[in-house]
Formats: sequence, C-alpha cells, structure tokens
Amino acid sequence: MDNYKNILVAVDLSEDSEHVCRKALRLAQDHQASLTLVYVAEIFYQMSASYDPLFYPAYEDIALDEEEILKISQTRMDELVQSLAVDENIELYNKVIVGIPKTEIVELAEQQQVDLIVCGSHGRNGIELLLGSTANAILHHAPCDVLAVRTRKKQRINSE
Amino acid sequence: MDNYKNILVAVDLSEDSEHVCRKALRLAQDHQASLTLVYVAEIFYQMSASYDPLFYPAYEDIALDEEEILKISQTRMDELVQSLAVDENIELYNKVIVGIPKTEIVELAEQQQVDLIVCGSHGRNGIELLLGSTANAILHHAPCDVLAVRTRKKQRINSE
Repeated sequence: MDNYKNILVAVDLSEDSEHVCRKALRLAQDHQASLTLVYVAEIFYQMSASYDPLFYPAYEDIALDEEEILKISQTRMDELVQSLAVDENIELYNKVIVGIPKTEIVELAEQQQVDLIVCGSHGRNGIELLLGSTANAILHHAPCDVLAVRTRKKQRINSE
Repeated sequence: MDNYKNILVAVDLSEDSEHVCRKALRLAQDHQASLTLVYVAEIFYQMSASYDPLFYPAYEDIALDEEEILKISQTRMDELVQSLAVDENIELYNKVIVGIPKTEIVELAEQQQVDLIVCGSHGRNGIELLLGSTANAILHHAPCDVLAVRTRKKQRINSE
C-alpha cells in the first residue's frame, strides 16, 4: 500500500500549530515518513505619506526587519518543535523562511518531492475564509496530496 | 493521540476513485475508523427551445432519469467496493444520492459526525481547476479535516 515518504507541514506558528503538527506527526509515524515543518513569514511593508527615500535608508531597514522576524520566528519554531516531543525514530526538520506562503510551500514541495502537505484550515466565512486562503492556494497548486486540518474558529494567525 | 473515527470518501466514480479510496482505506485501517463512500450524482437538465410543458410530462421524465442514474451509479459503486477488496474488520458503507455534491457531502459530514473527508483533487488550471471546485467548496465548508488526494492530470470525471 502506498506510503507517504516526505510530509511537509505548513505552520503559521499560531496556537493552532501544535494541533496541526500532531496530526502530521501521527501520519509520519504510521507511514514512517520524514517530517518537515515550515514557517513562511510574509512581511508587509507600509509606506507612509511622508516617506522620503533621500532621508530614509529603506532597504537597510527592511533587511533588519527580516533578520529580526526570522530570529523571532525561529525561536517560536524551536518552542513548537520542543512541545511536540517527537520520538527519535522520526526524521524531523524545520525551516523558517521569508516569502509568500503559498508560493514558497508549493515550491518546497516540488523541490523536496513531498507527497503530502499538511496545513491548517480556518473556518467558514468572512475573515476566517480569508485566513484560509493559503490552504486554498496550496490545494490548487500543490503537486501532491493536501491534508487541511480544521482549526478552531475565530483563531487569529500569529496570536498568542 | 487523536484518531479519526468516521471517514467519508467523496467519490466521482471515475477511474481515479479507486486510488482515492485506497488512500482513505489506509487511514481507516491505521485509525480503526469506519469508512463511508459517497457518490453524489449531479443531474443537469437542459431545456430545449421547443420545449412545451403542455405536451411533455417533464417531471415524470426527470423522475425516470433520476431512477436510472441512481441505478447505474449504484452498479458502479458496487464494482468500486468490490475492487477494493476491503478487509472484514473495516466497517464499510456506501451511499449513492442525487444532489449538489458539495452541499450533500458537507451535510452528510455534519449529520454523521465525520472527522475526515477524503476527496479527489484535480490539477492546476483551466478545466482541471473547474473539476476541482468540489474539493475547494468542501475545503471551505467542511466541519472537519479534509484530505485532498491529487489525481492524475487530464482525467475527466465519469470517464471510463
């Protein structure tokens, strides 16, 4: 019977991530698959009306922002990994990158020959539907199976 | 670790259905879950320009159509179940109904307290994206986890 070999879990590092990872972990155990947790930090830049490129070294600021965000995200990823208390016999990796989540996740799945992507999927309508748009984009573009794990309603991404 | 207890597999009775069911079957075995295969026949009525309700008993025709479609679909469902050669220790059910697939599947999932819906998901763009619209609608409205099993490209629904 076909086994999954490489499972990729797209986490948003919200409170829901542990729940999503536990579902993926169970699958990795059953299928003896390797598990890669990935967090893609999407950075939004807002330019103020008074922005003057002659006075503000914008690119340096952005570079600093990214570095800081990657550092904070990696700390939270490490905490998540620790909370999972994964068995030694599971091959576990984690990645924290900056980019557009759906694009990075699909590209990573292609590069690493992932056969299952696990991601959280938020509720039914309005803002929740919007938050679920990454799951939706992954579903349409993934080269492999996708397990959308239903997360709690009214949960906000990145809230703690 | 949380187990899935009731798994619902939405099949389209195409060539891909066996592949989708085998993935679901593996999960049912690992989780000792019950498995329900459901096929929702969506009937499209086309009214010709020459249609005259005084001369054509349209409702009777529709009723006959539905009966015939349900019969053919049930035969194909039985063949699918047989091809799976499911172990006796798996609780397996199947249903063939007429309606709008996404609505019926989500309602069934709610009624039967399903915790995982497994469905086929077609490829990337154009007509394939359209064919995947049921998977998409299920993803957004399901009360539970959804596993979208990637099916072969350029596969047509109901082709044999």
